[in-house]
Amino acid sequence: MNLRVVLVEPIYEGNVGSIARAMKNFGFHQLVMVNPCKIENFGLAMASHAQDLIRGAKVVSSLEEALEGVCLVVGSTGVSVHSTDEHIRVPGFTPENLATKLQGTKGDVALLLGREDNGLTREELKICDMIVTVPTGQEYSIMNISHAAAVLFYALSQVEPGEVALASRSDQDRLYEHFRSALEEGRYPLHKLDKTMLMLRRIFGRASLTDREVQTLHGVIKSLRWGSESHGEEP
Amino acid sequence: MNLRVVLVEPIYEGNVGSIARAMKNFGFHQLVMVNPCKIENFGLAMASHAQDLIRGAKVVSSLEEALEGVCLVVGSTGVSVHSTDEHIRVPGFTPENLATKLQGTKGDVALLLGREDNGLTREELKICDMIVTVPTGQEYSIMNISHAAAVLFYALSQVEPGEVALASRSDQDRLYEHFRSALEEGRYPLHKLDKTMLMLRRIFGRASLTDREVQTLHGVIKSLRWGSESHGEEP
Repeated sequence: MNLRVVLVEPIYEGNVGSIARAMKNFGFHQLVMVNPCKIENFGLAMASHAQDLIRGAKVVSSLEEALEGVCLVVGSTGVSVHSTDEHIRVPGFTPENLATKLQGTKGDVALLLGREDNGLTREELKICDMIVTVPTGQEYSIMNISHAAAVLFYALSQVEPGEVALASRSDQDRLYEHFRSALEEGRYPLHKLDKTMLMLRRIFGRASLTDREVQTLHGVIKSLRWGSESHGEEP
Repeated sequence: MNLRVVLVEPIYEGNVGSIARAMKNFGFHQLVMVNPCKIENFGLAMASHAQDLIRGAKVVSSLEEALEGVCLVVGSTGVSVHSTDEHIRVPGFTPENLATKLQGTKGDVALLLGREDNGLTREELKICDMIVTVPTGQEYSIMNISHAAAVLFYALSQVEPGEVALASRSDQDRLYEHFRSALEEGRYPLHKLDKTMLMLRRIFGRASLTDREVQTLHGVIKSLRWGSESHGEEP
C-alpha cells in the first residue's frame, strides 16, 4: 500500500505544513495538492522537518490529474457532511476499518482531504471508492483538518503491505463502463441507472477489488449478457 | 474514566488552542495548565469552538497542584525521550494499549503533555504511573504536540467507563510509603531502595490498581512483616 495524500484546494498554509509534518511522522511522503493556497513562511515553519514534502509536492489543477495511476480513492469527511445524499451516505469507515481493508494490499491509494471550510464536494465524494470519517463526539464534531489527518495517518501507518494487487482505477473504470453498457443494453430503467452505477461503485469500492476479481467480474457480466441473449429474456 | 489533560509549561499558544479543540472534538473538557504561555488571539483562534475550555482551564504553578485528586497519571513522550533512564524506560504503551488498560474503570486520569521543545523532565516522568507514546516512523519521529494529543484523545474516546474504581493517587502514595517503611525496617539495601520504589510504582502503575487491591496489598505487606518478625528472619 502506497499512500498518496491529496489536498483538495487547501485554504490555510499552516494546515498544509502541519499535514506534511504528520505525513512524514508516519512514514508517508507522496503529497499532491489541487489548486492550493500559497505556501510561504508560516506553512514551511509548521512543516518543520517535513519541508521536503512540501517542496516535492505535485501541484495540479484538477482532481482527475491528482488521481492518475491510483487504484483506490478514499475520501475523508467530517460527520456532518454525510447526510447530503443517500448514495454518498455509505457507512463511513473508521480509520481502523480502513486500515483493516488495506491490510496486505499493494497499489497506490489516494486519501482525499477537502477544503477546511467545506470539505469535499458532493461530486468529489461520488468519485471516491470509500469514505472515511474520524468518529468524534457530537458536541463539537468539526476537527482541524491536520488533526483528522494525523489520526488517519496513524491508523494507516499500521497497515502492513502485502502482495494482493489492487485493481487500478482505470481497470475499474472499464469494469463500470462494461456494467453500464450491459445494463443499458438490458433496458435497465434509465432514470435509475446513475444511482445504480454509483451504488455499484460503492459496493465494489468497499470491497477494494483486485486485478483478478475485476477480470472475473468482466466474465460474469459477459456471461449474464450471453445468457439473457440466448434465452431472449427481458430483465 | 474522567480525563484531565495537563499541559506542562506549554510554549506556543497555537498548540494550546489546537489541543483544546481536539479535546472537545473527542468529548474531553477538563484542561489544566502548569505555568503556561499567554493565550491570546492566535491561541483562541486555533481553539475555534473550544475557547470555553481555555477560558475554563485551571492554571497552576506546580505539577503537584495539577494532579490533585487524580487516580492515575499518564505521561506522554516522544520515542526519543525513552532512553534516558533505565527505570523510566518502561515499555511505552501505545494509545490503544492505554485505552485497553482504562476500559471499564472510573476515576480521574491525568494525561500529561510536556513542553514542545523538551517534553517532560525525567523527574516528571518518574511521577507517572504509565507512559504512553504514539508510535511513529523512525525517519522523523517528533510530532507536533497537538497532533500527538489528537491521536491520544481519539484512542481514549473509545474507552467505555465502568464501575471499577481506580485507587486515588493519595491512597496509592500511602501504599508506597507502607512499602518503603516496611523495606527500610526489613533492612533492604538502602542504595537500591529508590530504584526499587520506582520500579514498584511502575509495576503497580501499569496495573492501574483499584481501591480494593490497594487495601489487599496493605494487608499483604503487613502479613509479610508480621511473618518476618515472628520468625526473626533477616531478608
